[in-house]
Amino acid sequence: MLAVTILGNNSALQAYDRHPSSQVITLHDQLFLVDCGEGTQTQLARYRIKRSRINNIFISHLHGDHYFGLMGLITSMGLLGRENPLNLYAPSSLKTIIDLQLEVSGTSLPFPLHFHSLQEGVVLHTENYEVNSFKAFHRIECWAFIFRELKSPRRLDGEKLKLYDIPASFYEDLRRGESYAFPDGRIINNELVTEPTSKGKAYAYVTDTLYDDSIAASVKGVDLLYHEATYLKDLEEKAVKRYHCTTTQAATIAKIAGVHRLLVGHFSSKYEKLDEFENETRQVFPNSDLALEGVSYRV
Amino acid sequence: MLAVTILGNNSALQAYDRHPSSQVITLHDQLFLVDCGEGTQTQLARYRIKRSRINNIFISHLHGDHYFGLMGLITSMGLLGRENPLNLYAPSSLKTIIDLQLEVSGTSLPFPLHFHSLQEGVVLHTENYEVNSFKAFHRIECWAFIFRELKSPRRLDGEKLKLYDIPASFYEDLRRGESYAFPDGRIINNELVTEPTSKGKAYAYVTDTLYDDSIAASVKGVDLLYHEATYLKDLEEKAVKRYHCTTTQAATIAKIAGVHRLLVGHFSSKYEKLDEFENETRQVFPNSDLALEGVSYRV
Repeated sequence: MLAVTILGNNSALQAYDRHPSSQVITLHDQLFLVDCGEGTQTQLARYRIKRSRINNIFISHLHGDHYFGLMGLITSMGLLGRENPLNLYAPSSLKTIIDLQLEVSGTSLPFPLHFHSLQEGVVLHTENYEVNSFKAFHRIECWAFIFRELKSPRRLDGEKLKLYDIPASFYEDLRRGESYAFPDGRIINNELVTEPTSKGKAYAYVTDTLYDDSIAASVKGVDLLYHEATYLKDLEEKAVKRYHCTTTQAATIAKIAGVHRLLVGHFSSKYEKLDEFENETRQVFPNSDLALEGVSYRV
Repeated sequence: MLAVTILGNNSALQAYDRHPSSQVITLHDQLFLVDCGEGTQTQLARYRIKRSRINNIFISHLHGDHYFGLMGLITSMGLLGRENPLNLYAPSSLKTIIDLQLEVSGTSLPFPLHFHSLQEGVVLHTENYEVNSFKAFHRIECWAFIFRELKSPRRLDGEKLKLYDIPASFYEDLRRGESYAFPDGRIINNELVTEPTSKGKAYAYVTDTLYDDSIAASVKGVDLLYHEATYLKDLEEKAVKRYHCTTTQAATIAKIAGVHRLLVGHFSSKYEKLDEFENETRQVFPNSDLALEGVSYRV
C-alpha cells in the first residue's frame, strides 16, 4: 500500500482556502509527513489523520511555506505525551532552529527527536521500503524524495482461504509470504492460498525547483510523480526568475521520465481557479491531475 | 476609539476550531497585533483585517502558542511588498530566532523590521496613546501590556457643523481639537462645534500567569481587562503547577483592580464547552465575558 494525501497544495502566500505545502505518505503501515507549512497540524486534524502515527518527517527546504508548521506540530506531540521517537530528515540548519526554539521556551520534549541531515542517496531503508533523496534546483538547498516499496504484499485468494479454513488473524502473515501451520502440524504452503503481485510501487516528491532534465533521470519510471507547477506556461520567465516551474515544464519532466501518473501542486496564490493548470499539464502529459487538498491518491 | 478583536482564545493545543493566542487592538487609527500563535495570518484573513494596517506587534512570551505564527506573517508581509517599517516588541531571544530563520531562507525583507526588547514601563508613546508593559508570573519571561488612550477625540456637534458650514475634510482635525479657519480669514473656534468626551480609555492584556495580587495593582482601574483563565476553578492545583490561572482567580484580579469589564480567554483544550467559564467568572465578577474569536469588544 502506497498512497499520498495532500494537506497543502499552495505556494507561499495562503489564498482561497489553499494551504502551504504538506502531504502525508502512507507506505505499508507507516505514515510519513513530507513538508510542514504553517497550519499543517490543523489540516491533519481536518482530515482526521492521527499525529501520533507519524514517525518520520521529511522537510525539502527551509523556505517558510515548507516548514513553519513544524515547531507547532512537534510541540503539540510533546503536550500530548508522545513517547515514540520522531525522525526528522531535513537540511542541517533546521536542527539549530528547533533547538533554539525549544531552549527559549524551556521545553524538554518527552520523546526522542532524531535529526538526520539530508544527503544524496538512501536516507531511510527497511525491509519493506526505502526513501531516497536527491537535490532539486532552488534558490537555497532543496531536496526531492522518492518513496519506494521494496516488495509488494501477496494477494490473498479468498476461495482457497475458505477451502483450507485458515483463520483471518493469519491473513497479514500470508500477505507477507509466510505459510500457515495448523495446531495439528499440517502446513498450508503460502503459494497455495496467495498470488504474487506486481513489483513495489514508487512515489516521487519534487517541489520548488527550476526545470532541469536531470530531474527526469532521477524520477525515471516512478508510478506517481508530484512535481511543482507554480505558474501557468505563459509565466515561464517569472518561473525561472523565482526558481520555479510551469505546468508545461512539470509535464515535460513526467513525459521524459516515463512516469505512470503526474500530480501538480504548489500553485501560486495569484490564481484563484486552477482549471488551466489541468488543461496545460494534460496537453503535454495526459495522465496528469491537480493535487487537491484532502484527497488521497493511491499509487 | 479603543477596541479589541479576538483572533485566538485557546491555549497551546488547538481544539474545537479555537485557535492559539492572538488579538488585534484598534487604538485611534492604528492596529496593534498582540501575540501571534500559529495560523494568525489565516485568522486575520478570515475576519478581513488587513495585514498591511498592522505596524506594531507585541509578543508576550516565547511559548509557541503565542508566536509560532509570526514568521509566516512577517514573510507574507514581505512577499506582498510591504515597505512600511514594522515594530516588534518582544523578549530579546525572539530577534535571534527571526534573524536565523531569515538567514537560512535567504530572505531579505523589503521593509525595516525594528526590534524592541521588552522591559518594564512605557514601551511605546505617542501624542495619542501609550503602551506599558509589566511582568506576568510564568515559567519563562512573560509580559503583560496596557494600551491607553492619552486623550480622547472630541465629539462633533452635527447641527453646529451644518450651521457653520465646515467642510467634512476638516472633521478629523476638529476631533483633535483644532479650530477651523475659512479662506476669508474667519475662524470657527473648536469649542463652538465640538464637545469634550470622557478621559482616555485603557485596555490591559494579561496572559500566561500565576495568580498574583500585584497584577491587580498593575491593571488598577482599566476599562477592559483580558485575563487568562486556562482552567475552571476545581483545577486550581493544576493551574498553579502549570503557571496558569482559573476562572475564579482571573475574576478576583478584576474585582480587586476595580476594572470596568473582564474578558477571559486562553482556554484549555480539555474543555469543549465554555459555559462554565462564564458562570464561574461572573460569580466573582459579574461584568465578565468570554473572549470569543471573531468578536470585537469596544472598550
